[in-house]
Amino acid sequence: MLKTPPHTPETPEPSKASGTTFGPLPLLFYLLQWLPIAAVVGIFAGSASALLLVSLAKATEIREGHIWIVALLPLAGLAVGVLYWYTGRSVEAGNNLILEEVHAEVENPDAVIPFRMTPLILIGTFLTHLFGGSAGREGTAIQTGASLADQLCRPLRMDRAQRRIVLMMGISAGFASVFGTPLAGTVFGLEVLALGALSYEAIAPCVIAAFIGEMVTRAWGVTHTVYIVERVPNMSLRGLLSAIAAGVLFGLMAMTFTKLTHAIKRMAARHIPWPPLRPFAGGVIVAAAVFAIGTDHTRRFLGLGVPEIVDAFHKILPPYDFAAKTLFTSATLGMGFKGGEVTPLFFIGATMGNALSHLLPLPPSLLAGMGFVAVFAGAANTPIASTLMAIELFGAEAGAYAGIACILSYLFSGHSGIYTAQRIGRAKD
Amino acid sequence: MLKTPPHTPETPEPSKASGTTFGPLPLLFYLLQWLPIAAVVGIFAGSASALLLVSLAKATEIREGHIWIVALLPLAGLAVGVLYWYTGRSVEAGNNLILEEVHAEVENPDAVIPFRMTPLILIGTFLTHLFGGSAGREGTAIQTGASLADQLCRPLRMDRAQRRIVLMMGISAGFASVFGTPLAGTVFGLEVLALGALSYEAIAPCVIAAFIGEMVTRAWGVTHTVYIVERVPNMSLRGLLSAIAAGVLFGLMAMTFTKLTHAIKRMAARHIPWPPLRPFAGGVIVAAAVFAIGTDHTRRFLGLGVPEIVDAFHKILPPYDFAAKTLFTSATLGMGFKGGEVTPLFFIGATMGNALSHLLPLPPSLLAGMGFVAVFAGAANTPIASTLMAIELFGAEAGAYAGIACILSYLFSGHSGIYTAQRIGRAKD
Repeated sequence: MLKTPPHTPETPEPSKASGTTFGPLPLLFYLLQWLPIAAVVGIFAGSASALLLVSLAKATEIREGHIWIVALLPLAGLAVGVLYWYTGRSVEAGNNLILEEVHAEVENPDAVIPFRMTPLILIGTFLTHLFGGSAGREGTAIQTGASLADQLCRPLRMDRAQRRIVLMMGISAGFASVFGTPLAGTVFGLEVLALGALSYEAIAPCVIAAFIGEMVTRAWGVTHTVYIVERVPNMSLRGLLSAIAAGVLFGLMAMTFTKLTHAIKRMAARHIPWPPLRPFAGGVIVAAAVFAIGTDHTRRFLGLGVPEIVDAFHKILPPYDFAAKTLFTSATLGMGFKGGEVTPLFFIGATMGNALSHLLPLPPSLLAGMGFVAVFAGAANTPIASTLMAIELFGAEAGAYAGIACILSYLFSGHSGIYTAQRIGRAKD
Repeated sequence: MLKTPPHTPETPEPSKASGTTFGPLPLLFYLLQWLPIAAVVGIFAGSASALLLVSLAKATEIREGHIWIVALLPLAGLAVGVLYWYTGRSVEAGNNLILEEVHAEVENPDAVIPFRMTPLILIGTFLTHLFGGSAGREGTAIQTGASLADQLCRPLRMDRAQRRIVLMMGISAGFASVFGTPLAGTVFGLEVLALGALSYEAIAPCVIAAFIGEMVTRAWGVTHTVYIVERVPNMSLRGLLSAIAAGVLFGLMAMTFTKLTHAIKRMAARHIPWPPLRPFAGGVIVAAAVFAIGTDHTRRFLGLGVPEIVDAFHKILPPYDFAAKTLFTSATLGMGFKGGEVTPLFFIGATMGNALSHLLPLPPSLLAGMGFVAVFAGAANTPIASTLMAIELFGAEAGAYAGIACILSYLFSGHSGIYTAQRIGRAKD
């Protein structure tokens, strides 16, 4: 049985800072206890992210080489639907299941996130991307990270407080390793739990797991895409007001995306009673749109869309691309395909930022970087993790503009984000 | 009368994210209401910081040119003591008064932080530095920022929730402008209120006030010292473990500093009943030490100590410098001189990091940067603001190491920080 941390109140009680006992020695035990666990979580999550990234690169390469494969997207949807219906109903809730488990008030000593979450989400994501669904990968990384981490809890006989920490470490390490951003991953694991508040419980185990996870992915030889913000003007009043205006628009975009995706999900649930048919129908819609409009015009909206995101930093793109990506992604994910929302949100934000360069006096490359993180910040209600992500990907100078945009986007994106199991810690004013 | 924000619960009640009404239009009013106020707060705080920085540069120049002036430090202490005793008892609590006012449960409609806080703290800080006390400046910047901001509350007939926001904006703008770190200032204004938790109330007004404050200081022609971390190795397991070990040691250093300063303060209060004599006695102790050891050996520990901090990034320094600076600063501040703790904490951290390069396999320059922010992170219980500060001052690569060190330092620094009015939002485990 592991040492229970000396004090983990469920509802923090404000009190004067001087009234608590505390010693460095118990903390050293705390650190020595969590260090090896963080290492194991990091190795699990980082390895799963490496496998995910390699498999998605393969899926993308095959799809790009044989674009007719998108015609089979309905069948892929049916396969994903059937797979989850017959073997994965307990893990269907995905990210929300993990957040629910972190929040659970009562501990069921036998509750462990089933191991099958990992292979199912990896297969579901691979099929989604191979056949041209528009989706992301952070959901997959979080689910593999947290479900693999959770397997440690029973053999180590952890109590509820300890299991919370393990799950948060899994989220942090998954996020850190899939995007190559360990500081953002650390804060994301804490920030995603509740909207408007951040508790530092688990911050030390999370930072260790996040950095180890990121290193393990690199150790597998997997590299991350480099995005370069070409020019960052010195901060000025004009720059500040432009960043505020952009942030407001990114936030409204985040709200639109969230509402649209949730609406499609509800509509599908109402009209298609048998769940496996929902991604089938989604596949029909997406594939029909792809071939009706023409693959030359639509292929950039399928899968992760990384080449188009890179282009948003270097070229002027069609100003409607962010809207098209929104429709493709909401249809894909709202109908039940797998992967995640975040990389499409990067795409939507980066191309929308690129388009905003027609209206706002900031360089398109900088606006692309700001949108990349800020639409995500609004949709996930994670402004600080998103700001850190901007800094880790684009550098500290661009991070200042991105930070302003992330905070304003967070404020304007509404109270329902992409993770419906997220709680409200502090309402937006 | 300003519009009251629609919903600002004192104790956040966790609830499902979907159950709250919300609209972009009220938020637009919220933004348009706070934007001009943030601009005024930023102008106040940024101008006060500019004045402070210019006056401290002058004080330092005079002292360095006439080091015998340190012999008058007891008289300067008496002057500061008498000044506060006869005109400043209502603002003597300084930073803690501001934190108390933010936390106040019941609103006294006439409660405004007296305007006199601003001239008193500026004069007190100037005298402290001119005559060779070892002190900082962030306390001064926070107090001028918040007390000037608070003057807006009565004419604008603000309610308690709005006044909280104004005070937080003042803290953010003061911190951002005095150090030239707007993102760190933004988060510091939220993070310093409670240990272990961060509420996003006021995050948008704070980011605007912080960026405007920083710009205003620059617009006055005031520049900030540039610290350069010379080389940052790629993150490795060895680097991670070294950063963890350094962070633990920085945290224990922060705890030592805090305990020592508080102990000196308590002892002075017990043995010297008339408060103005306490800084007099402090001046006697510091001046006696300076001349007994010799001014050539001790002058680098007086005032802000910026040249020595810069050296910590480029040279190997005597390994006991951090201990000497701790003693000089605890004696100066514990006995009642004015200024702040943070720049001495930067000094202590940077020189301690420099010394740790004899023990840990990281470059001295990087360890100096890590210590610079991490001892402060532990003493103020602000790991995220400190990480952002590292990024803004030293860049994103050094920020990764610094982030690990800040979080570990936070964990190991104990529950009583330099700001005793800070509350506990979430105990450290």
